[in-house]
Amino acid sequence: MVRPLVALMALLMTAFWAVGQARKDTRPNIVLIVADDHGREAVGCYGNPAIKTPHIDQLAAEGTRFTNAFCTTASCSPSRSVLLTGLHNHANGMYGLEHREHHFSSFDTVRSLPVLLGQAGYRTARIGKFHVAPERAYQFQQVLKRGGTNDPASIGRSPVEMADLCYSLFSEVSEKPFFLYFATDDPHRSNAVAANGSPVFKSDQANRFGNRPGGYPQVHDVFYQPFQVSVPPYLPDTRATRQELAQYYEAVSRLDQGVERLVALLKETGQYDHTVIVYLSDNGAPFPGSKTTLYEPGMRLPLIVKLPKPQKPGFVQDAMVSWVDLMPTLLDFAGALPDTVYRQGRSFKAILEQENVTGWDEVYGSHSLHEVTMYYPMRVLRERRYKLIFNLAHALPFPMALDLYHSLTWQDVRQAGRKQYGKRSVEAFLHRPRFELYDLQTDPDEVRNLANDPKYRAELQRMQAKLKRFQQQTKDLWISKWEFE
Amino acid sequence: MVRPLVALMALLMTAFWAVGQARKDTRPNIVLIVADDHGREAVGCYGNPAIKTPHIDQLAAEGTRFTNAFCTTASCSPSRSVLLTGLHNHANGMYGLEHREHHFSSFDTVRSLPVLLGQAGYRTARIGKFHVAPERAYQFQQVLKRGGTNDPASIGRSPVEMADLCYSLFSEVSEKPFFLYFATDDPHRSNAVAANGSPVFKSDQANRFGNRPGGYPQVHDVFYQPFQVSVPPYLPDTRATRQELAQYYEAVSRLDQGVERLVALLKETGQYDHTVIVYLSDNGAPFPGSKTTLYEPGMRLPLIVKLPKPQKPGFVQDAMVSWVDLMPTLLDFAGALPDTVYRQGRSFKAILEQENVTGWDEVYGSHSLHEVTMYYPMRVLRERRYKLIFNLAHALPFPMALDLYHSLTWQDVRQAGRKQYGKRSVEAFLHRPRFELYDLQTDPDEVRNLANDPKYRAELQRMQAKLKRFQQQTKDLWISKWEFE
Repeated sequence: MVRPLVALMALLMTAFWAVGQARKDTRPNIVLIVADDHGREAVGCYGNPAIKTPHIDQLAAEGTRFTNAFCTTASCSPSRSVLLTGLHNHANGMYGLEHREHHFSSFDTVRSLPVLLGQAGYRTARIGKFHVAPERAYQFQQVLKRGGTNDPASIGRSPVEMADLCYSLFSEVSEKPFFLYFATDDPHRSNAVAANGSPVFKSDQANRFGNRPGGYPQVHDVFYQPFQVSVPPYLPDTRATRQELAQYYEAVSRLDQGVERLVALLKETGQYDHTVIVYLSDNGAPFPGSKTTLYEPGMRLPLIVKLPKPQKPGFVQDAMVSWVDLMPTLLDFAGALPDTVYRQGRSFKAILEQENVTGWDEVYGSHSLHEVTMYYPMRVLRERRYKLIFNLAHALPFPMALDLYHSLTWQDVRQAGRKQYGKRSVEAFLHRPRFELYDLQTDPDEVRNLANDPKYRAELQRMQAKLKRFQQQTKDLWISKWEFE
Repeated sequence: MVRPLVALMALLMTAFWAVGQARKDTRPNIVLIVADDHGREAVGCYGNPAIKTPHIDQLAAEGTRFTNAFCTTASCSPSRSVLLTGLHNHANGMYGLEHREHHFSSFDTVRSLPVLLGQAGYRTARIGKFHVAPERAYQFQQVLKRGGTNDPASIGRSPVEMADLCYSLFSEVSEKPFFLYFATDDPHRSNAVAANGSPVFKSDQANRFGNRPGGYPQVHDVFYQPFQVSVPPYLPDTRATRQELAQYYEAVSRLDQGVERLVALLKETGQYDHTVIVYLSDNGAPFPGSKTTLYEPGMRLPLIVKLPKPQKPGFVQDAMVSWVDLMPTLLDFAGALPDTVYRQGRSFKAILEQENVTGWDEVYGSHSLHEVTMYYPMRVLRERRYKLIFNLAHALPFPMALDLYHSLTWQDVRQAGRKQYGKRSVEAFLHRPRFELYDLQTDPDEVRNLANDPKYRAELQRMQAKLKRFQQQTKDLWISKWEFE
C-alpha cells in the first residue's frame, strides 16, 4: 500500500525538487541514525562475514568508516543524552535510564542538539526511540509517527515503515535544511511487559530481539542458523549464545533494510547528495560483557559518516573519537558551532577524509548507572595502547541489567555452573578491582589486568592523573571518590 | 515594623472573624511545620534539659506528643516526598536529593497531599523550603514569599518573618479551610556556596547553622556555651562536637520562636481552635551518626500534634507511626481519605488521644540515596524491641554527605586519629555488614549486632521475611538485591 503511494508522491513532487536544490541555504541536511545496541562485531563492513548488512556496508563504501569510535557510556538513555548534548552524562544529569521507575532526566539547562539546530534555522524531526528527558530540553519541532492505526507495537521495530514516515520531511519544499534523528528499537532485546508494566522474562529460551511471525511491513526476513553466527571472544561459544546471536542478527538485518529505504527515499527526493548521514549505535550488543560495561565490546562501536559529496568514498578513519564529539561535529556542519566552547567534545568534521591525523589518540568514558538499582560508576581513559578503567564502586558485585541477567546466554552459564564466560572468568566479570589497566596491543580482550604489576606503575599513575584531570575539567561530582572511598 | 502592623490588621479584621468561624465547612485548618534536621534529642519536651524550646514544648503540653515517631528515610528531599505522598521514596521516585546536580524527582503520576487537599476544597499554601519536584506534582495554590526586598538570604532562616507572612492566609475570609506547609531551613547546617554554585566548606571551625551576627528580624538570639549542651550517645563528647551543638541549639531556639509567632497569629486571627498543628522534622540532626543513617538518632523524631480542641492536653502517645502515615492522617482530618487505599501508610487520627493502642507496633524504613554519589540503599524493620537493618550495598563504605564529612565534629575525629565515634567504632560506622539486628531493649545505642548470633537466628529470619514482604507490597525495585547481590 505504502510503496505505490510513495512512488506516486515522488512523481508529483518532482517539479519541486529544483526549488529544494536551489535553496539559498547551502548547509547540508543531517540524518542521524541511532541503532539500539548494535555492536561493532555484528556489522559486515566491520569484518563479520556471516551477518548480512549490505546497506550499512554500502554507506561505508560511499562514506567514511571509523575504526576507533566509542560511546562514553554503554547505557541507552545516558548514551543518547551524550550524543544530543555533547556533555558526559555526569555533566548533563542523565545518570541512568529515563523510562519507568528509573526516571533519570537531564538538567533543564542543557542546550541540546535539536534545540541548537532549530535555532540555527534547521527543520528538526525525530522518529522512533527517544528515551531522554525532559522533553523540553530535547525539543524537536516535529515527531514523526505512524498515524491512524491502533497497532500497539513500537514503530521502532518497523524500520522500513519508519523510513517511509520520513518522506514528508524529505519532500517538503523549504528554504531550510533538515535534521532527522532516526532511532530504531532494533536490534535491542525484546522484553515482554505484564499488564502492570513490569517486564516479564523467559530465561529458558532465546530472546526474539523483536523478531515475530509474519515479520514487519515491507521487511523481508533474513534468517540465520545458530551454526552460521560468529561468536565474539567476550561470549561463551555455547548453543545458547548461538541461538540468541542468530535472533540478534535477524534484527540487525531488519534494521539494515530500514537504512536501505531511508537512502532510497533520500535519493528519490533528491536530497541524498545534500545530506550528511551518520550511522552509529548507542552502545554495544545486549549481552553480558558488552552493554552496560566499558569493555571494548560495550564502548567501541560502528560509526559511518556519509558526506553529501564524498571525496574519498570508502575511506577508513582510525582517529579516536567519541560520542561527546558528535554534537560539535554536527553543529559544525550546520555552521552553528558556538564560539564559547562549553562542550566536552570537539568537531571531527575537518578530519573526516583526512589521512594520518594527529591529536586524536584518546577518548574518555563515564558511566554512572543503568537501571536505578544498578549503581556502578566507572571512569575510563582509552588510549591507543592502554586502557584504564576506574571502578568507583568496585566493592559491589557488577550489577546486571534485568534483561541481560535473564538472557538465555547468561542463564545457561549459571545453570551449567560454568566458571568461564568468554575469555573472562565469571568471577572476574562479577567482581572487579578498583583499577583495571589493559595493554590492548597484547591483550585485546582485556583479561590481564596490569594495574597491580609494578612494571606498569608509571603507566598507571600517568593515566590516573589524566583521568582525575578529566573529572575536574568536566565537573564530575564523583571526583570525591578519589578521597572518600 | 511588622509587629504593630500585624496588631493593627488583627484589629481591623476582628469584625470578620465571626464569618470565618461560622463557615459551613467545619473541617479543621491544617498547619504542618516541617523542621530541617531537628533531632529528637534537641527538644526540651523530649527530655533535653539544656535546650530552650518553650513554644514547641507548649504545643506538646496542649497536644499529643509521640514518643515513637519515625521518618522512613533520613534525607531531606526523599523524606519530604514521603510526607507529601504517603509513599516510600522507592515508590514515589524521589530516590535522593532534589537540588543541584543530584536532580531526583518524583514520578509525574504521584498524587500529593497539597493536590488532594486542594481537590477536597482546601486553600493550600506553602512557605520556606520545598526541595521536592516536579512542582506540578506537588502543586500548592499559593507560595508565600518575602516581597519587595533584595535580601538574598533564604526566608527559611527567618522563622518569625516566615510566620508573619502567613498572616494573610490566616486572616483571609473564606468558606474554605486552609492547609499551610511551613518548612524552615532551621536548624540545618549552613553551607556557603561559591560563585559557581559549588558548596564551600570550612572544616576547621564550628558550623554556624544559619546563626549570624545581627540575627534575624524579631528573633532574640539564645546563645549556648559548649559546656551547657548535652552530647547524645551517638556523638563523641569532644570540644568540637560541643562547639557545633552550641551553634545547633541556637538555631533550634530561633526556630522555636517561629513556632511561637505562628501560634500567636493563629490565636490573633481566631484560627487556633480550628486548626490541627503538626510539628515534626524531616530527619535527625545533621551530624554523622544521625542524618542519612537509619540508626535511631536519624529516624526517631519529634512529632507533636495539637488538635483544634484537645481532650487530653499533654497526652503522650507511644504508638509507632512513621512519615508514610502522615498524609493519610491529614487527609482523614480533611474527610478526604480515598476509598481506594493506594497509600503505603494509614491514618493515626483515631488514636491521637487513645491510650494503650494495639496494632501500632512496627514501622518500616527505606533509604536509597542522599547526594547522587551516595548510593547506599537500606531497608529497615523497626519493632518495639528488635530492629533489622538491611544494607543492600554493604560492600561500599558508608557514604558521607559532604557537609557532614566536612563538619568540625567529624574532621576532629579524623585528624585526631580517633578510633571511636560515640558508642560506635569509626570502623563499624563506615563499614557495615549486610544485616544489622539490634535488641533495643538491652542495646538502645545499636552497637551489638546480633545478626550473626545463632541465638537470634529465628528472630533474624522472621524479620527478614517481613522486610521482604514489605518490599514486595510496596513494589520496591531493590527487591532484586536479595537474589543478585
